[in-house]
Amino acid sequence: MDNQTTLQELKQKMADFVRERDWEQFHTPKNIAMSIAIEAAELMEHFQWLTVEQSKQLDDEALHDIGEELADIVIYSLSMANFLKLDLAQTVLDKMAKNIRKYPADKVQGKSHKYTYYQQNDDA
Amino acid sequence: MDNQTTLQELKQKMADFVRERDWEQFHTPKNIAMSIAIEAAELMEHFQWLTVEQSKQLDDEALHDIGEELADIVIYSLSMANFLKLDLAQTVLDKMAKNIRKYPADKVQGKSHKYTYYQQNDDA
Amino acid sequence: MDNQTTLQELKQKMADFVRERDWEQFHTPKNIAMSIAIEAAELMEHFQWLTVEQSKQLDDEALHDIGEELADIVIYSLSMANFLKLDLAQTVLDKMAKNIRKYPADKVQGKSHKYTYYQQNDDA
Amino acid sequence: MDNQTTLQELKQKMADFVRERDWEQFHTPKNIAMSIAIEAAELMEHFQWLTVEQSKQLDDEALHDIGEELADIVIYSLSMANFLKLDLAQTVLDKMAKNIRKYPADKVQGKSHKYTYYQQNDDA
Repeated sequence: MDNQTTLQELKQKMADFVRERDWEQFHTPKNIAMSIAIEAAELMEHFQWLTVEQSKQLDDEALHDIGEELADIVIYSLSMANFLKLDLAQTVLDKMAKNIRKYPADKVQGKSHKYTYYQQNDDA
Repeated sequence: MDNQTTLQELKQKMADFVRERDWEQFHTPKNIAMSIAIEAAELMEHFQWLTVEQSKQLDDEALHDIGEELADIVIYSLSMANFLKLDLAQTVLDKMAKNIRKYPADKVQGKSHKYTYYQQNDDA
Repeated sequence: MDNQTTLQELKQKMADFVRERDWEQFHTPKNIAMSIAIEAAELMEHFQWLTVEQSKQLDDEALHDIGEELADIVIYSLSMANFLKLDLAQTVLDKMAKNIRKYPADKVQGKSHKYTYYQQNDDA
Repeated sequence: MDNQTTLQELKQKMADFVRERDWEQFHTPKNIAMSIAIEAAELMEHFQWLTVEQSKQLDDEALHDIGEELADIVIYSLSMANFLKLDLAQTVLDKMAKNIRKYPADKVQGKSHKYTYYQQNDDA
């Protein structure tokens, strides 16, 4: 479906869901921001005690559950975009363009995003 | 852009961004899950001391900054979907369908999603 | 018990708990940091759909459950202090002293901690 | 200081800090819960791109910064306990006792806390 589904279609479905339940009163930016953070924590819970390597080896049941948590994060993100009347695709494309400028491929090749303590000598 | 941008286009752009930097080694599920949670907290920070009502009244600068935080959440969600080879639109549509069954519009009308302590007598 | 319980006693109990289960292998800083964030989200969940005002009116059952979530946060914080061999009381007292300097009582009286968009004109 | 500092002393210092700034109006349970989650994310940020192993090898600067983030989490936890009039030591001791019953040392020896997908065959 990713090939044929636009952000607008998903935003519309979410707007209908919220309106039909008279939940606009709850879907305020403060509450939705909390909700995204809560769902993100539920996603993390699947990886809490795994090594980074183990987190790459997931069986089908895990994949399904993790997919649902990821969906919840996206769903609340759509609701936030609806409330703020944001063009989400444009906002994402703009941020990606900013990241491309901020992290030039030839400079950051194979290095983790930020300066980290562990890696502080690795430009030597 | 929401009208014409598919999830696949955004996923592809993110996959290119990660691959061109040789960052697949960092974008493991455990790390991406943490990253989504970190960005979600940065989004929350904008609303930390506001009342729910105040969080609805945002000026243009706030809207811009909040949009960027929301974009970061979506960007990492795309990266997670890429790693897990998930059809994100399908996963979101499935979860929305599940939520529609779980929260029938006529039953939950105007009530907040979950049973909460505060509202425990409000069905009386 | 707050009057007679030192941080050291709690840290010791937590260290014993982890060692007796051979869980030092899991209680690494990365994992404990995730765990604190996960417990913090579980705490937030109790307030997700409440107004700020409603969040002040909690019944006994809510208080009990919220207390348990708060305990989990403190418990993992003790475990982090154990792993890092931090004197937690000293670290907290130092940070409090820093906050006192950063937010002079006479200057920030009744104003929320950070500059926020909503309140940008309230020094006028 | 951990040997001689009680929870009550830290709670008192935090209560004074909040009251002297007339910040009780902001330190509501909903806002403090968000604040703990925000600080927890700032703590996680230090470990975001590290392997679990790398997260154990921290230099002095990292230790200092991480200590400050941990302090922030404890500080807001004290503020929550103050607001809710919770005996934090008692609450923590009760939760620890519950965890001891829930995870008997002989049964969970060397196994991560929860059943995880990765480890589902490891009792075989």
